[in-house]
Amino acid sequence: MKNYKILLAYDGGRYNGWQKQGNTENTIQERLERILSEIAGEEAEVFGSGRTDAGTHATGQVMNFHINWQATAEELLAAFNEKLPEDIAGLSIAEMPPRFHSRLSAKGKHYAYTIWNSKRPPVFWRKYAFWCKEALDVEKMQAAARFFPGEHDFKSFCANKRMKKSTVRRLDEIGFEQKGDRLILHFYGNGFLYQMVRILVGTLIEVGEGKRQPEEMSEILREKSREAAGFTAPSRGLCLREVFYTEEAKGGE
Amino acid sequence: MKNYKILLAYDGGRYNGWQKQGNTENTIQERLERILSEIAGEEAEVFGSGRTDAGTHATGQVMNFHINWQATAEELLAAFNEKLPEDIAGLSIAEMPPRFHSRLSAKGKHYAYTIWNSKRPPVFWRKYAFWCKEALDVEKMQAAARFFPGEHDFKSFCANKRMKKSTVRRLDEIGFEQKGDRLILHFYGNGFLYQMVRILVGTLIEVGEGKRQPEEMSEILREKSREAAGFTAPSRGLCLREVFYTEEAKGGE
Repeated sequence: MKNYKILLAYDGGRYNGWQKQGNTENTIQERLERILSEIAGEEAEVFGSGRTDAGTHATGQVMNFHINWQATAEELLAAFNEKLPEDIAGLSIAEMPPRFHSRLSAKGKHYAYTIWNSKRPPVFWRKYAFWCKEALDVEKMQAAARFFPGEHDFKSFCANKRMKKSTVRRLDEIGFEQKGDRLILHFYGNGFLYQMVRILVGTLIEVGEGKRQPEEMSEILREKSREAAGFTAPSRGLCLREVFYTEEAKGGE
Repeated sequence: MKNYKILLAYDGGRYNGWQKQGNTENTIQERLERILSEIAGEEAEVFGSGRTDAGTHATGQVMNFHINWQATAEELLAAFNEKLPEDIAGLSIAEMPPRFHSRLSAKGKHYAYTIWNSKRPPVFWRKYAFWCKEALDVEKMQAAARFFPGEHDFKSFCANKRMKKSTVRRLDEIGFEQKGDRLILHFYGNGFLYQMVRILVGTLIEVGEGKRQPEEMSEILREKSREAAGFTAPSRGLCLREVFYTEEAKGGE
């Protein structure tokens, strides 16, 4: 058995997210397992670096799987891409050490959230951005964003109210990028709770609209309650850009 | 009656091109006329700077129309955008002198054609680019492209075989831009025949694939026959970027 890692891009628009669970149909994981099982002629289980929500995109999702494969890794990637629908693609492949696991070996992630901030409709970005017509006060959003880097209990930014495990995460950076009509928020951290990025974005948008003050952020963190934070920005603006691994985990490349 | 010019962007993917003609349904022109007639409460006729084919996109199409309108131009644009489907948008508006006509006053156009040149599938560009898996020889394509600027009879690059009017056009420049996996070809000229850009692109791709030599281009021009040129590149890679007007025609801005 070999352990392969594939870097994936997908347009999440028509999928029910990454993870197959219970009766959920049409998930990306399920699609990929079916294709890899066909190619390998055996059941293949696929591990993603993390779930992405229904409608969320990826340009740098990482998955791994163990299969018997005699030809080269590049031939495996070509066979895989041949069978994929046009909204999912394998970008690169590497054989990894047996213990590499795309989720357990990950030490951090980069998510980007795209806001279309213009009166002009986002014709070519309508499926990849959240449209805010009114001009956002980006300086206030940046002031608010400065409250989040560091290790915090992000319970107020977690959509899973029955979460029993720790809701403490380390957020390393929130970066702002303006590209024409797009305002892109970049989130770097060691792990993200369920819908955490989308709730952070919704809260920052409310700051940008003047509905909240930057100083309220520390209060929201303290309350440890989903109700304290802002709305959940829609999934279509979110994209998993990159998963980071330790040098050790990257050994196979 | 006032004469308004609107700068338009649209994703042509689900439309049967710009122009309504005969029984053609679901054209962009027809959609826009219906919406403007609703807003103005009178029949409105819309003039585009030119037709775009079924599936072709625009980020800089120009149209004009004459209506009775009492409120401001910005209010007209807002009302228009309010009623548009999400794959069409009005980007800006200007009241023009009575004689301005978006097609007749145009002195030139800029079209861009996007080729996705990579083994990696174009997940996020699949609807806006033509995918060439094998590496194209861009230098040869550039050598071939140098045969076209100037005034020529482009009959070999015209899909309308019954064209009775002149097929002489002036092509000012073919520019090449590499942006990651995208190879973008920019065409500037005073006018373009039916599918001219797409046939030029198809022919240049055949040069890039080594199926034709750059020197053949002058022979193709001389033959004045559609059969002499290459294939018609698909419409989804084509985008009308800008329409140019004389200073006089721009008077109203």
